[in-house]
Amino acid sequence: MIDDLVERMRKGDRRAVARLITLVENDEKKAREIIKRIYPLTGNAYIVGITGPPGSGKSTLVDKLVKEARKEGLIVGVIAVDPTSPFTGGALLGDRIRMQDHATDPGVFIRSMATRGSLGGLAKATNDAIKILDAYGCDIIFVETVGVGQVEVDIVKTADTVVLVTVPGLGDDIQAIKAGLMEIADIFVLNKADREGADATYFELSLTLDLESEKWEKLGWRPPIVETVATLGKGIKELWEQIKRHREFLEKSGKLEEKKRLRVEEEIKTIVSDMIAKKVEVSIKAGNLEDILEKVMKKELDPYSAASLIMEKIIGGGKSV
Amino acid sequence: MIDDLVERMRKGDRRAVARLITLVENDEKKAREIIKRIYPLTGNAYIVGITGPPGSGKSTLVDKLVKEARKEGLIVGVIAVDPTSPFTGGALLGDRIRMQDHATDPGVFIRSMATRGSLGGLAKATNDAIKILDAYGCDIIFVETVGVGQVEVDIVKTADTVVLVTVPGLGDDIQAIKAGLMEIADIFVLNKADREGADATYFELSLTLDLESEKWEKLGWRPPIVETVATLGKGIKELWEQIKRHREFLEKSGKLEEKKRLRVEEEIKTIVSDMIAKKVEVSIKAGNLEDILEKVMKKELDPYSAASLIMEKIIGGGKSV
Repeated sequence: MIDDLVERMRKGDRRAVARLITLVENDEKKAREIIKRIYPLTGNAYIVGITGPPGSGKSTLVDKLVKEARKEGLIVGVIAVDPTSPFTGGALLGDRIRMQDHATDPGVFIRSMATRGSLGGLAKATNDAIKILDAYGCDIIFVETVGVGQVEVDIVKTADTVVLVTVPGLGDDIQAIKAGLMEIADIFVLNKADREGADATYFELSLTLDLESEKWEKLGWRPPIVETVATLGKGIKELWEQIKRHREFLEKSGKLEEKKRLRVEEEIKTIVSDMIAKKVEVSIKAGNLEDILEKVMKKELDPYSAASLIMEKIIGGGKSV
Repeated sequence: MIDDLVERMRKGDRRAVARLITLVENDEKKAREIIKRIYPLTGNAYIVGITGPPGSGKSTLVDKLVKEARKEGLIVGVIAVDPTSPFTGGALLGDRIRMQDHATDPGVFIRSMATRGSLGGLAKATNDAIKILDAYGCDIIFVETVGVGQVEVDIVKTADTVVLVTVPGLGDDIQAIKAGLMEIADIFVLNKADREGADATYFELSLTLDLESEKWEKLGWRPPIVETVATLGKGIKELWEQIKRHREFLEKSGKLEEKKRLRVEEEIKTIVSDMIAKKVEVSIKAGNLEDILEKVMKKELDPYSAASLIMEKIIGGGKSV
């Protein structure tokens, strides 16, 4: 079945693409098969991550960026990640409806991803979905995270270019940007730049960037601040140009290759850990670790020592990799 | 140094407790040592997780619950977990100031935990901090998660009793509760119950619970809905009674033991996975996996097959645990 779906995907069948993504979302084993099968086809898509607080207009921005990319004839993928914070579920729908503009354009593939089980699962499924869209032939993939929690940031920072969207008048949030997100943003967008307070926010952002001047110099890239009014299409062209400029920077400096390598390392590490976790789980279920667990329950053994014992059982006394 | 700190903690030195928690937050290796050292002292504290959307009054509720517990002479721990969503950092401060009521009470230990590195790290550090407060002699530990994302839920659901706080008029959120949190809540709190719309929210919650009547019957526990006005202290006594009632239910049904066991299993699994991940990382850094990584980079090998190869190297061809 997977061979058939991949074959159809290669011929441009969008329903096959959708089906493959659903499979990686829901079936660990099939995900593995699918990724093995399509991996040689990947590596061509450029990945742009877009994050920012709720109401900052990320979806509209992505919508407009998709149009820019389409003007250049690029095949575009959009993945909207919604970790379905139990209290914000459903917020996605409106955004998705907005994207319906592109629903009839065969050059655009849009997909929402939500948490089903664990968050680790969401990051993994998103990762796999990116690979599928890449194998399908997308030239550029926008990964938009709806929320602003750490998980979303973790997902978005695996992108080649990370765009951080903010809006005037969030006050405290600028503080937060200073603290956490400065690290991961390659481009800042000040959306709704026609709003009151935009100048002050721009100024503050700019000052904050100034504080790290040495870092930017060393890196060879200072994150630009792009002012946009996404709903009116203002500033979109400049944003698109900055994304392309950042890509060029990464390519010429060798940093794109470096990023890809780190991504591969991270991915393999995660898969190995998951495999081991599953092995331990199976052993527990089979009752093979009963004695160790009992000791921990009785406080005769602490969890770390128990883990070491299990490790020894697994890798035979610490055989090095 | 750790022996000394633990000794001081056992004698009731609060500064030693604070120092130990800081150590588990910041130093993986010391965390291990500390947990090994104190593990035999743990197992007495009852853990109550409290979660809910921002502004639902969780901190005030916890504050009042602490007072109830103190009236019974219990030693109380409070851990406020703030995953520092990059956009909400700082929200915690006000809450913490409110808790200063108890600052001079030697029977109450309050601690905030925030993300430094990864989220996995936060969950682990919280877990370790709970153990320290348990070893210190806390009879009850309230773990309050400030946010409402999946991570917070993951943290809170390791508690013995999970209290889910909601407020009238969140509309959509009730839907979300239906979808996700129903699963983890042992007690529902409708806080700010003097607000308009409280009856409707109560009714809706109640109806939603009715839908799962069979489940509750099988389980032997139907989550009660407690109406509170935390700022006025209304409903707090009832909430406290329900927490105690739930504890009694867990103890008598053997489910508390079951929960503890699952927690131990989960914890050991996580530690083993982390150990393996670290092993892989070390191997990558040492250049031992260069050939495999190169093949993945060249798309000659997919990440899953690469992980299997590494697994083979680690566990020698799939030796079972």
